[in-house]
Amino acid sequence: MDNILQVPGFKAAAVKSGIRGKDRLDLGLIVSEGPAAAAGVFTTSRVKAAPVVLDMERLDKGGRAQAILVNSGIANACTGENGRRQALLASRLAAEALGIEEDLVQVASTGVIGEQIDMDCFRKGIPLLVEKLAESGLPEVARAIMTTDTVPKTAVRVVELGGRQVTIAGLAKGSGMIMPNMATMLSFVLTDAKIEPALLSRLLAKAVGKSFNAITVDGDTSTNDTLLLLANGMAGNTPFAPGSPDYARFEEALVDLCRELALMIVRDGEGATKLVTVRVTGAASELEADLAARTVANSNLVKTAFFGEDANWGRIIAALGRSGAAFDPGRVDIAFNQVFMVRDGLGQGKEVEKSATEVLRQKEFTVEINLKAGGFVREIYTCDFSIDYVKINADYRT
Amino acid sequence: MDNILQVPGFKAAAVKSGIRGKDRLDLGLIVSEGPAAAAGVFTTSRVKAAPVVLDMERLDKGGRAQAILVNSGIANACTGENGRRQALLASRLAAEALGIEEDLVQVASTGVIGEQIDMDCFRKGIPLLVEKLAESGLPEVARAIMTTDTVPKTAVRVVELGGRQVTIAGLAKGSGMIMPNMATMLSFVLTDAKIEPALLSRLLAKAVGKSFNAITVDGDTSTNDTLLLLANGMAGNTPFAPGSPDYARFEEALVDLCRELALMIVRDGEGATKLVTVRVTGAASELEADLAARTVANSNLVKTAFFGEDANWGRIIAALGRSGAAFDPGRVDIAFNQVFMVRDGLGQGKEVEKSATEVLRQKEFTVEINLKAGGFVREIYTCDFSIDYVKINADYRT
Repeated sequence: MDNILQVPGFKAAAVKSGIRGKDRLDLGLIVSEGPAAAAGVFTTSRVKAAPVVLDMERLDKGGRAQAILVNSGIANACTGENGRRQALLASRLAAEALGIEEDLVQVASTGVIGEQIDMDCFRKGIPLLVEKLAESGLPEVARAIMTTDTVPKTAVRVVELGGRQVTIAGLAKGSGMIMPNMATMLSFVLTDAKIEPALLSRLLAKAVGKSFNAITVDGDTSTNDTLLLLANGMAGNTPFAPGSPDYARFEEALVDLCRELALMIVRDGEGATKLVTVRVTGAASELEADLAARTVANSNLVKTAFFGEDANWGRIIAALGRSGAAFDPGRVDIAFNQVFMVRDGLGQGKEVEKSATEVLRQKEFTVEINLKAGGFVREIYTCDFSIDYVKINADYRT
Repeated sequence: MDNILQVPGFKAAAVKSGIRGKDRLDLGLIVSEGPAAAAGVFTTSRVKAAPVVLDMERLDKGGRAQAILVNSGIANACTGENGRRQALLASRLAAEALGIEEDLVQVASTGVIGEQIDMDCFRKGIPLLVEKLAESGLPEVARAIMTTDTVPKTAVRVVELGGRQVTIAGLAKGSGMIMPNMATMLSFVLTDAKIEPALLSRLLAKAVGKSFNAITVDGDTSTNDTLLLLANGMAGNTPFAPGSPDYARFEEALVDLCRELALMIVRDGEGATKLVTVRVTGAASELEADLAARTVANSNLVKTAFFGEDANWGRIIAALGRSGAAFDPGRVDIAFNQVFMVRDGLGQGKEVEKSATEVLRQKEFTVEINLKAGGFVREIYTCDFSIDYVKINADYRT
């Protein structure tokens, strides 16, 4: 596996534009040599930031993009008509500097809601970005999009498609306001594979369900969530169809890469000290499996117990009880890794609890819940809920 | 207004039974001189503690009760057949000691889920309780049901019905796992009014919607929520019908008393430093008003911002955006008390923010949200989310 965050035909750069003060990378640009097939998944919130609305409109015109302009510091959300004008102007400035069509520029922002961006930051920053563009620029962009993130998040996969080597590289940010469908999350995934836009959308939807839409940090959904996938076709592979081995190989690599990025977000969840997989099996429907897993994964009481390394399964069963999923409380099994704390709805005693507590001391573990009500399964990835989460979020803007 | 927590025809007592260790009031008993009309509202969780199931069955038989036996320390939830037997045995012991019908005993428990109660605690405690019964015993019961509560919660109302003085007294416990429908909450409301069981249920349902089902501390719902209303008829008032002035007077007093108790629970929310009323107006439907207010009131990001006294309205609008309520983000108004931070979806600048921050420094304030999408209104009462919440809940059992 090639670990260099670099994809043939893509260049990138980041600069300190001043949006977040003087000494902070806060503006990034990713550019493809030619127009790329593009697909996007965006926040499901009714309140969508200006760049999100613009990106959706542009992708609807035919699934093509050539550049991504992204800033951190200010979200350009709840900024009204002026925010819309800013997003348009920023994309126009980038298009002009690059000599490409304006509609091929996707824009993304993350940061504080309700503030206007000083357009001088774009006016001065964009020419510097274009000047700096390099194949090795992606890691810098990954740093420029961080907000409360403590580490940049990147991943790479290389697959063979019809004898051609194809690269997929992804970068992501996010650590708070993370509740899928989607998360406060920006992620850009780039590949040199040749894929039609319609197929790209389908592949991305599949990958998102098992990755970015399977994570939660705090149950809050952002106004700015943006996941973009650009495929510029430089690898020259023969286009593949659903059901083909190449399709399967690409899908597997894409799902895997997205899950790696998504788990990085949970591990870096605000104040998080543990990565917990909540795995519900035996649900009566897909929806109920999701409801059950998500309610446990979002319960403050469950998450504070994880932080306290307290094997308090009562809180798990209480969360299941209010989840809306149908099940018989007298049949539920709950295990931490392989330690069954609850069998058929009953606690298994103090000795088992000691072993379960050992599991909770680990940095990463799985809570297995069998509802015994059907055949549906759902995994949701969450973190514990620590004192630092509150500290970070009580002081975020000050 | 008479502030003595005492109702003609009711006696009560509490003792240290040993369920919670040696030196802690943990078992209470409330008894009416004769069988009383009774109504109850219970947890909506699919996982219901044994006492909850038993109470529901008994009230279904005709809405009568004469005694309430309550313990703290162990919830008798997720305790299987044995838990059911314990609840039955406890109620039988109380019935025998009091010389009343077993079906007239309601039982309630609060505490840790999944543990079995040592029945010796009941065997020894109940005779002591019966011996101690006194008209002045209710405040002691209010203390006996506390778990993470820092203060006992009681309220009294006196109303005139057809020339007779009628008393309503209530006690409640709850401070975590508080998310209505209902809350980790026990509350017992006693009155000497003469009211038919069917009417009592109707009155209680109305009161609950505006009180216990309008509060949240952490979005978690308990397995044990129990609200009981007993009316023993000792006041000798002429029974009143819906629509009559007496009905209106009684309803108003009951709603008012329940809201007072409910707000006490929020003020005493685990780690809470502020009581916040989230008031949504202009919603397109009753459901959407509730969804919008509840989503804001439960958002960890909104609640940590309250704790940090940070007038971060972006988090409020983000919560509204994911709530499922229909509205135009470009028309929303948001005010803290009378300070309008957002008008028609736009922030009103730094000066207004300063005034808003002053509001947030207060112990109690209202967040007013006008969705301008219709005529429905909902108030939800919540608290801020502090470092102490996490401390309390990471260490609860240890």
